[in-house]
Amino acid sequence: MDPYRIIEVKQSVFADNNADAENLRREMKAQGTFLVNLMSSPGSGKTTTLTRLLAALPEKMKVGVMEADIDSDVDADTISRTGTRVIQLHTGGMCHLDADMTRQGVRQLGSSDLDLVILENVGNLVCPAEFDTGAALNMMILSVPEGHDKPLKYPLVFQVCDVMIVNKIDVLPYFDFDMEKVTAYARKRNPNIRIFPISAKTGEGIDALAQWLTETIRNWKAK
Amino acid sequence: MDPYRIIEVKQSVFADNNADAENLRREMKAQGTFLVNLMSSPGSGKTTTLTRLLAALPEKMKVGVMEADIDSDVDADTISRTGTRVIQLHTGGMCHLDADMTRQGVRQLGSSDLDLVILENVGNLVCPAEFDTGAALNMMILSVPEGHDKPLKYPLVFQVCDVMIVNKIDVLPYFDFDMEKVTAYARKRNPNIRIFPISAKTGEGIDALAQWLTETIRNWKAK
Repeated sequence: MDPYRIIEVKQSVFADNNADAENLRREMKAQGTFLVNLMSSPGSGKTTTLTRLLAALPEKMKVGVMEADIDSDVDADTISRTGTRVIQLHTGGMCHLDADMTRQGVRQLGSSDLDLVILENVGNLVCPAEFDTGAALNMMILSVPEGHDKPLKYPLVFQVCDVMIVNKIDVLPYFDFDMEKVTAYARKRNPNIRIFPISAKTGEGIDALAQWLTETIRNWKAK
Repeated sequence: MDPYRIIEVKQSVFADNNADAENLRREMKAQGTFLVNLMSSPGSGKTTTLTRLLAALPEKMKVGVMEADIDSDVDADTISRTGTRVIQLHTGGMCHLDADMTRQGVRQLGSSDLDLVILENVGNLVCPAEFDTGAALNMMILSVPEGHDKPLKYPLVFQVCDVMIVNKIDVLPYFDFDMEKVTAYARKRNPNIRIFPISAKTGEGIDALAQWLTETIRNWKAK
């Protein structure tokens, strides 16, 4: 058996993505599966962060992952090695996923028994932010080498995200990255954004993120 | 006087961007201005590389820069400090520039007396690669922290670029980045791609890039 499947997702024919996203959010709530949409630039460490996060979540939590990419399946391959249920979504050149593409992925993954599904969106700070995927939570990763000025240049993604993970803090000494500035710039876009400094390489900060996410899912289920 | 202006560029109403790009390429050739389209992910060091490159080009070469961003003018501000003629283009949320948006920029910059215009495209590895801007040369930057697997995941940008600059080689010791692998992966997309390893921070490799570009412009003008 293959460790993962690759499916081609097609752009929605529905004009109103926002309404469709609300529908998907209701469907996921009804089945009790918390959907996370993880966004970032290419190379900021989404897959490595996921690998660490999966290991830090409670063992009894049932988790699935959807890896979206224009091409290639290197990320699904990486995740499948952790033993987590995973599928690779190919967008056929599209720079983002809409709610219906996400729904196609969720169905192909088989999610009704899962507590948590994490969608790793296409690596792009612009387009994914414009399309509500129907997720219960939007998270983004900004990595130290990208620089602290990114909330000034790519405002929307910071505005729509509940969580900003600052990754690669292990290389802080080698870059001119100002944590206070990035905090101030990100809060200007979204005063309520939660910030988790981590190193997916060393594991620093992962436990705090995993605990917060576990708590958030518990509260969401109880509502 | 302001050191630079900000202009809002509007998406072309023409359906055929490729034909329009060919037109712009002819217009620029007729006036003898070499247009470079510089693409990369957010935070890979486009502006810092440009600042170094501008200083390394021959003094008699007349150069202008167009900084494209969704929002903000931090990059135009940085470039204006080098004394180079620069304008900031705002795309109004668009993730790329098409040929007509580039033409609007070139006209507002005032380019008829320039030997070289460099367009710094929106930070995005996906969408800009899909739109021919009418440039004579496409360059991209991949920075070491982004990882050597990017040509596998974002094939088109590597395919359409004549040059791949590998930036931030000063931090190679701190990252798991394989120069041989990235070379092989990039050449799989484009066997003729030229590769320049540089550090925009330390200046390493900039002279080789500047010399090659100067030579390329000279040959283009002579044709």
